[in-house]
Amino acid sequence: MTLLRVAVVGAGYWGPNLIRNFHKLGNCQLVAVADLDPKALNGIKRSYGSVETTTDAGSLLTRPDIDAVAIATPPHTHYQLARKALENGKHVLIEKPLTDSTADAEELVKLAEKTKRTLMVDHTFVYSGPVRKIRGMVDSNELGEIWYLDSVRIDLGLFTNDTNVVWDLAPHDLSIMGYLLDARPVEVSATGASPVKYFDGKVESIAYITVRLDNGCITHFHLSWLSPVKIRRILIGGSKKMLVYDHLDPDHQVVIYDKGVDITSEEERRRFLVQRRTGDMYAPKIDQTEPLETMCKHFVECALTGKRPITDGVSGLNVVRLIEATMESMRLGGAVVAL
Amino acid sequence: MTLLRVAVVGAGYWGPNLIRNFHKLGNCQLVAVADLDPKALNGIKRSYGSVETTTDAGSLLTRPDIDAVAIATPPHTHYQLARKALENGKHVLIEKPLTDSTADAEELVKLAEKTKRTLMVDHTFVYSGPVRKIRGMVDSNELGEIWYLDSVRIDLGLFTNDTNVVWDLAPHDLSIMGYLLDARPVEVSATGASPVKYFDGKVESIAYITVRLDNGCITHFHLSWLSPVKIRRILIGGSKKMLVYDHLDPDHQVVIYDKGVDITSEEERRRFLVQRRTGDMYAPKIDQTEPLETMCKHFVECALTGKRPITDGVSGLNVVRLIEATMESMRLGGAVVAL
Amino acid sequence: MTLLRVAVVGAGYWGPNLIRNFHKLGNCQLVAVADLDPKALNGIKRSYGSVETTTDAGSLLTRPDIDAVAIATPPHTHYQLARKALENGKHVLIEKPLTDSTADAEELVKLAEKTKRTLMVDHTFVYSGPVRKIRGMVDSNELGEIWYLDSVRIDLGLFTNDTNVVWDLAPHDLSIMGYLLDARPVEVSATGASPVKYFDGKVESIAYITVRLDNGCITHFHLSWLSPVKIRRILIGGSKKMLVYDHLDPDHQVVIYDKGVDITSEEERRRFLVQRRTGDMYAPKIDQTEPLETMCKHFVECALTGKRPITDGVSGLNVVRLIEATMESMRLGGAVVAL
Amino acid sequence: MTLLRVAVVGAGYWGPNLIRNFHKLGNCQLVAVADLDPKALNGIKRSYGSVETTTDAGSLLTRPDIDAVAIATPPHTHYQLARKALENGKHVLIEKPLTDSTADAEELVKLAEKTKRTLMVDHTFVYSGPVRKIRGMVDSNELGEIWYLDSVRIDLGLFTNDTNVVWDLAPHDLSIMGYLLDARPVEVSATGASPVKYFDGKVESIAYITVRLDNGCITHFHLSWLSPVKIRRILIGGSKKMLVYDHLDPDHQVVIYDKGVDITSEEERRRFLVQRRTGDMYAPKIDQTEPLETMCKHFVECALTGKRPITDGVSGLNVVRLIEATMESMRLGGAVVAL
Repeated sequence: MTLLRVAVVGAGYWGPNLIRNFHKLGNCQLVAVADLDPKALNGIKRSYGSVETTTDAGSLLTRPDIDAVAIATPPHTHYQLARKALENGKHVLIEKPLTDSTADAEELVKLAEKTKRTLMVDHTFVYSGPVRKIRGMVDSNELGEIWYLDSVRIDLGLFTNDTNVVWDLAPHDLSIMGYLLDARPVEVSATGASPVKYFDGKVESIAYITVRLDNGCITHFHLSWLSPVKIRRILIGGSKKMLVYDHLDPDHQVVIYDKGVDITSEEERRRFLVQRRTGDMYAPKIDQTEPLETMCKHFVECALTGKRPITDGVSGLNVVRLIEATMESMRLGGAVVAL
Repeated sequence: MTLLRVAVVGAGYWGPNLIRNFHKLGNCQLVAVADLDPKALNGIKRSYGSVETTTDAGSLLTRPDIDAVAIATPPHTHYQLARKALENGKHVLIEKPLTDSTADAEELVKLAEKTKRTLMVDHTFVYSGPVRKIRGMVDSNELGEIWYLDSVRIDLGLFTNDTNVVWDLAPHDLSIMGYLLDARPVEVSATGASPVKYFDGKVESIAYITVRLDNGCITHFHLSWLSPVKIRRILIGGSKKMLVYDHLDPDHQVVIYDKGVDITSEEERRRFLVQRRTGDMYAPKIDQTEPLETMCKHFVECALTGKRPITDGVSGLNVVRLIEATMESMRLGGAVVAL
Repeated sequence: MTLLRVAVVGAGYWGPNLIRNFHKLGNCQLVAVADLDPKALNGIKRSYGSVETTTDAGSLLTRPDIDAVAIATPPHTHYQLARKALENGKHVLIEKPLTDSTADAEELVKLAEKTKRTLMVDHTFVYSGPVRKIRGMVDSNELGEIWYLDSVRIDLGLFTNDTNVVWDLAPHDLSIMGYLLDARPVEVSATGASPVKYFDGKVESIAYITVRLDNGCITHFHLSWLSPVKIRRILIGGSKKMLVYDHLDPDHQVVIYDKGVDITSEEERRRFLVQRRTGDMYAPKIDQTEPLETMCKHFVECALTGKRPITDGVSGLNVVRLIEATMESMRLGGAVVAL
Repeated sequence: MTLLRVAVVGAGYWGPNLIRNFHKLGNCQLVAVADLDPKALNGIKRSYGSVETTTDAGSLLTRPDIDAVAIATPPHTHYQLARKALENGKHVLIEKPLTDSTADAEELVKLAEKTKRTLMVDHTFVYSGPVRKIRGMVDSNELGEIWYLDSVRIDLGLFTNDTNVVWDLAPHDLSIMGYLLDARPVEVSATGASPVKYFDGKVESIAYITVRLDNGCITHFHLSWLSPVKIRRILIGGSKKMLVYDHLDPDHQVVIYDKGVDITSEEERRRFLVQRRTGDMYAPKIDQTEPLETMCKHFVECALTGKRPITDGVSGLNVVRLIEATMESMRLGGAVVAL
């Protein structure tokens, strides 16, 4: 097979981005788009005249002339749609989060293995220039042992009706963490706050999450829809070097600091234990390709060749599991939840 | 009494700053300085010829011609020195933290009440222009209900032999929090990391602390000696306005944002619940007086008049209690500790 | 007339932006687009199926079913196209600069007056939120007497074959200056540099321009295609307040400083003449409407109603005159050129 | 001679900094300090008990037990004091600017040559870590051919009674330029403004200066006492790399950009002439030694050994000559002045 015939389910907030990218890819044919809202479909029709549109998503999941389905619907619908698509032999790309429960995610992973179909989750940031550059530095051991990852993703955010700040934002940072760090999460503790009272007043708009990894590395995530300033920044500290990934600084998205601490010899230890070391700083050139384009290409390639996606079902499952543990810790008032 | 006769115990890292300020105050006479290190005393002698120096701190605590003692020695010595000074009728100023245990702090508070002497802790930031400006905004209810306080104090820091990052840095932020927010801490949870191995490898150089207040406000503190970049920033979000206090931005130390969220009427709720509101931003002029000067003046005034200090023994005790709870939570791997 | 029938000539770099905006306006019908390049026309056809396309621009300028023509072709073609359009009774919008010579610009202005047609130049920045906000402050005399305007527009720029950095960038800043300051330019002096050798080696890629106004205000413009950092910032200093307009700072595009100097009374003058005054700083909320949309709406409104455009032919002429004087001064090695 | 006996004339604004540094140097003895103001001398006496003080500067210039004189008095007094000191066989360090006229500066240079004494001007920035680091890069040809130097030094400044913004600030930047660039200034053009009216209303508080060098390099200086924001930044563009020296950015004072433009081959030239090239960015570690300390050490070393100072009389003369040409150009309304 050299051409992947793709259908997109969901043309609301994110779907049009997938549609735009699949439409322009060479080895892929965007066959059809489904959405419950005829207005959304009209918009698609205007921009991409040749694409079929339908309000019946289910019909696309069984059609023999469709090889792959990209699902960009609300999270609680992911599982049912993906299951049906896999059962009908489709490759499946799912918008993050993979599902809204670990159990469902596990089932999808199993089903994809059984049907030998590609199951991939759209953790877009994993395909971005800065994150891939950092992964390259981890691979070459330029940072040394990774001591910590500290992530801040805060803004005066869009409150949405169907989710809280953790399900909304954490998939980004947890997937970045999972991709960058070669270690297994062992413990989660999290605290949240719901100062804005709507629905039943229990929708978190601020969250602090600590995830400990099995190699001793500590990772922390600050998420908020209630910040007066927009910050999207990850600090990573290693035994050799440290770095700052500031998503919003176009000129210096990744800055590597030749900084750290040196411990002086045993004898001297009693007097002056740990000394700062500071050297040069540099910002490598970052590939500016649109991450979503890279992601879509990767999905098509994996579906066509059977290659395992970087953000496969398991990586999606891992993120869902961490979010469930986060929600559990928050329900328990911040207690530590083992994974 | 119109002139306070002051002795300073400890002329190491911070003591000289106290000495310099007490020396130049009008209604105060710097009588003597004690330190175990004769070199430190020589330095003081050179700069302030008329001041007595001694290696025997104890002798200063009992002298009748000394009214007040400022203690700038290592934390574990604060309690003994302060107790003796209070027992001998001296007013006492203690470098932060007040003591290294809650029990000791409680005793000093009681003793100061019994002897009717001023007991004050040097929480310097409470006397800084930015923090006093923010307190003024809280007083005038400009921010509305305070929803959260988020503090980051990270740097490639000076590791010290006798303490961890929490005892070193948290007094600053916890005292600011205690001064700004009119609510009682009820719960602490904290996680830390000790990636740099020295001593027994258990000295935390990174810490995340969550303190919940009895009015529902959430406060969070990120402390680190292992950051490649220096950040000293507090975000405060209120129901009316939000602000950023960036200690390192000389021109805009406090920036107030007329930003927030509005909840739309009940009927519309099902469709579009929470809307962002953004307006002007402003940075008020900040008093640039050296906070330490303001603090020293305040101590002298309180000692001379019997006025209650802003950072009295109780506020010092509160900070020590929070730090003890933080350390307890970290020992328990992040468990929630009730206060 | 309640509907303006518009043709766009030129679908290269900027034309598509005009097309997109005219296409979505309510009281305007985008009838046709002309370009020499069939590929460009195909792109337009794909996006806006109902629009006629042609490689014969001339045909559009005479058609009776077209009321207005927007010209987005290279500058040296503006005059001929605009003249023919005006002569045929069309309203005309011209991409900046209006023309490439003062004489041509003067003729177009006269012709538009004679034919009673709207002649407008697309000085887009004049229609941006920040610039209109500043104009409002000038109107209300919030800044006091304007002492200076200092503009920096530098980047590692796109070198183009048919122009230098002055013709490329100065129209932006000179039109902003002309719009904001109620005073007449009287003198220009400018120096440039052409370190990158191509064509005949005389294409300026760096320029410094000083324009003095008849009220004593000094304005200065730094333009460069050869800067490692991108800066787009205008400082305006008034006798009452000063401001910074930083186009690239999304959160604080305009910041007003309550700063200045006070001169002390005559007697004290001998000792301490001029004292700094510093107060609060604020950043007003800025309208984020796309400037081009506002500009296109304004053109349509002016053409339909006969209202005089803010950026009319005269303002376009003024900019061309200043650029010619700038080029003359640079040819003379920096000599002062009177206007 | 292994110990230089130094007197400092002038203990006003800058003198105390020289005194503090000479006092702590090993191979130098601070013998005496002169100032017309007894209060200033009392302050010196309090801090440095062993130093002689006098209100009679003249007496120090002839004393046989003094080897060198550092002059930190108002500029119009530099020449007379320095001449007398040189005539009496003293080595002389003069606060910037060397003199207030080219003629005087030339005389001092000649006199120092005749008397074989060290004549040095305190162009402090030349001794700073960032400037020395950049000089190292020029030496190693890391930047390639230097195309331009663009300097901005603006602030809400201290207006002083005895000078304008050019004489006050330009010595810093012109001395940096003279030190960094191996080329001879050939032309100066400058414009200024005096919006704040005091004295006779002709004291410039804003200036723009262009200096062309004999190798084609263009340098430009923006000086202002009337900016709401403080900027001290120099851009240097070379054919290989470009850099930003931001004096106020403590973590990244010098940032080197691997950016530039490439000209494509002759044939392609007609279509796409100049292409941007962007690569990594880095910020080398900068020596943080106080520049004044390095400068004072260098003066003592040169006086003791006969070594030629980096900022010798000639470099001081060059700066004065450029400032005189600047003032001349401003008097002529911006005309180009040949050097």
